[in-house]
Amino acid sequence: MPRPSGRTKRKKNRIITLLTDFGLNDPFAGIMKGVILNINPNAEIIDLTHNVPSHDIFAGAFALFESYNYFPSGTIHVAVVDPGVGGKRKNIIIKTPEYTFVAPDNGIASLALKNENILNIHEITNPKYILKNKSNTFYGRDVFAPAAAYLSKCVKPGLLGKELPDYSKIEFPEIRGKGNSLIAEVIYIDKFGNCVTNIPDTIAGRINVIQFNKITINKISKSYEEGRRSEALAIVGSAGFVEIAVNIRSAEQVFGIKLGDKIIVGVK
Amino acid sequence: MPRPSGRTKRKKNRIITLLTDFGLNDPFAGIMKGVILNINPNAEIIDLTHNVPSHDIFAGAFALFESYNYFPSGTIHVAVVDPGVGGKRKNIIIKTPEYTFVAPDNGIASLALKNENILNIHEITNPKYILKNKSNTFYGRDVFAPAAAYLSKCVKPGLLGKELPDYSKIEFPEIRGKGNSLIAEVIYIDKFGNCVTNIPDTIAGRINVIQFNKITINKISKSYEEGRRSEALAIVGSAGFVEIAVNIRSAEQVFGIKLGDKIIVGVK
Amino acid sequence: MPRPSGRTKRKKNRIITLLTDFGLNDPFAGIMKGVILNINPNAEIIDLTHNVPSHDIFAGAFALFESYNYFPSGTIHVAVVDPGVGGKRKNIIIKTPEYTFVAPDNGIASLALKNENILNIHEITNPKYILKNKSNTFYGRDVFAPAAAYLSKCVKPGLLGKELPDYSKIEFPEIRGKGNSLIAEVIYIDKFGNCVTNIPDTIAGRINVIQFNKITINKISKSYEEGRRSEALAIVGSAGFVEIAVNIRSAEQVFGIKLGDKIIVGVK
Repeated sequence: MPRPSGRTKRKKNRIITLLTDFGLNDPFAGIMKGVILNINPNAEIIDLTHNVPSHDIFAGAFALFESYNYFPSGTIHVAVVDPGVGGKRKNIIIKTPEYTFVAPDNGIASLALKNENILNIHEITNPKYILKNKSNTFYGRDVFAPAAAYLSKCVKPGLLGKELPDYSKIEFPEIRGKGNSLIAEVIYIDKFGNCVTNIPDTIAGRINVIQFNKITINKISKSYEEGRRSEALAIVGSAGFVEIAVNIRSAEQVFGIKLGDKIIVGVK
Repeated sequence: MPRPSGRTKRKKNRIITLLTDFGLNDPFAGIMKGVILNINPNAEIIDLTHNVPSHDIFAGAFALFESYNYFPSGTIHVAVVDPGVGGKRKNIIIKTPEYTFVAPDNGIASLALKNENILNIHEITNPKYILKNKSNTFYGRDVFAPAAAYLSKCVKPGLLGKELPDYSKIEFPEIRGKGNSLIAEVIYIDKFGNCVTNIPDTIAGRINVIQFNKITINKISKSYEEGRRSEALAIVGSAGFVEIAVNIRSAEQVFGIKLGDKIIVGVK
Repeated sequence: MPRPSGRTKRKKNRIITLLTDFGLNDPFAGIMKGVILNINPNAEIIDLTHNVPSHDIFAGAFALFESYNYFPSGTIHVAVVDPGVGGKRKNIIIKTPEYTFVAPDNGIASLALKNENILNIHEITNPKYILKNKSNTFYGRDVFAPAAAYLSKCVKPGLLGKELPDYSKIEFPEIRGKGNSLIAEVIYIDKFGNCVTNIPDTIAGRINVIQFNKITINKISKSYEEGRRSEALAIVGSAGFVEIAVNIRSAEQVFGIKLGDKIIVGVK
């Protein structure tokens, strides 16, 4: 994934991003913002997305992975896809040199953290930093929003709870195979129907052929408009992976591609 | 509904929330923000939701009810679900000790106001505070956004129009019945398919049994993950009411629950 | 279209609006905000809409047209509906006396610019103001967001690239015919199912009759509630055009109206 060209240093950690599966029909994301502004009126809150498919930790983790490092140093990323809310998984804070992640300990932050140095991990347990009368169903409001707000006021993570030795990780489905034939898969489909694979841009230059269903692609295109409107294209997408696409149309629909579909990759 | 733990006092009423049924496909909510920033460049605008079902005043009122008091004192809440736009209902400002509500006088703010002291109510009629060439179809832009923006600059409500003795209310569908058997109903269904009932958390501790369709629930669960993935759970939800839910899945879909469905509640 | 009543002058061009077809399921809009805030932490970013139908330049252009002039002078409007991303069309900056538009040169800004004086047009080519390792698929992130952010810090457009003599325009489908009988069409359908036509409000006062499918409307209504719930209304909408509507219901659904449907207009 291309990285932005340098980051502005900020004295205060004023920016808080929100990524959830709460949707936009209910006021849940708005309520989280109210809680944050009530604690830190100077916080600046940015939505990454609230439309992660319900309970889909991988989809949320991937969206956070492709977003987090475009934000200024000091940004606090709150990610709440949390099927286990109210249950046994911990609520945690993970610090890296540039960012702070606030999330349930279910792996939601782990793809973003794959290439980062972890400075420390803390649990959120101190009731002083949790809303009174905490619910069992909406920790976004009661636990994660207040934690992020206090952290944005430079409260130390150690005040919110004890340090933890590690955090939960989910697996990234790496490309498989050896030699000239690799097996990839579709790991994410975006709004345009572009089908993101797990083929990293680092091997794009060595690819001879890509095959899926009964379709064969013989080159990596430089732009969507190189293709006709019913032709499958392979192109290096913005998240740093090869995508299957169709000019102006949805590859998902034109070719009936689904998450997890296998792709054969021939390389030099 | 649990209340946040204390509110930050603010000198200026800088925060304006927006709740509408305008959706997010059209730029209507964005236009309201332009109007507000044109009048008060220092306003901070927070979306509660713009996806209230078209013309559904109750759904909007419920969303406002569960959101409003998580915001800092001084927040101005603008709520526009307004099937009567351009017609006879008034445009009003309602002040409570902590908040200001700006809305059509059709009951949209009345659930939030149920437990609040009303300081005063004013009509919005002064053309000085309304956009020139007001349309008949978009008072969100022409009337409510400017009113909120001027109020956020500490213009007194009395300058926008004359004081009114009362405002319109919609009924909250209270739980019915006496003794050991109560009749509740489903009043809201959230994005996850959790079915919010009108059973208040204050009686949750006395519940023996909940019945709907041919399903029986014998306890109030503490978390979603207590249930199997096809099992109906009752849990106290974040808005302060008992909800019917299913672990990881949608109770709405699994059990075919609809708004208004009746629920029998047995209490000690 | 009614214009707001005067605009606040701002020393800095701090407000940046975003209009895209990126949707809200992916974090693309959020990523653009990260890029902007990384360059100008003081930018204030407002979403117009991200739900323009994929690749629909006209729909995006119309949404920008009905929105742009409600914002304070100095606002930078970023509009990215960009089926040709990575291809031959240019990336441009267009300045008017009050606003700056940042967009692909495919006509997306041209409806908004129809009635504006163009001060100058510049291409965006200087790599200093483009993200390093620019992708071929996400210029919203790599080109347009950084350009807007630098412009919001008062970097001169001439530093981003050379001046251009003109920009691409799309046609607005003007009403056709002469004398007493005109032919109009449906150019936009909003979230409520109101069907916006290309009949300008300036001729609304001269209309005797409006006909479409087998429906006849004999007057211009002043509000939706003048109509019964199955009756077609014609009303001057908020964008300055006559709309076909139904009280509380969707004219699109009730009458099966589609984009491009022809409408016969009889005028005095």
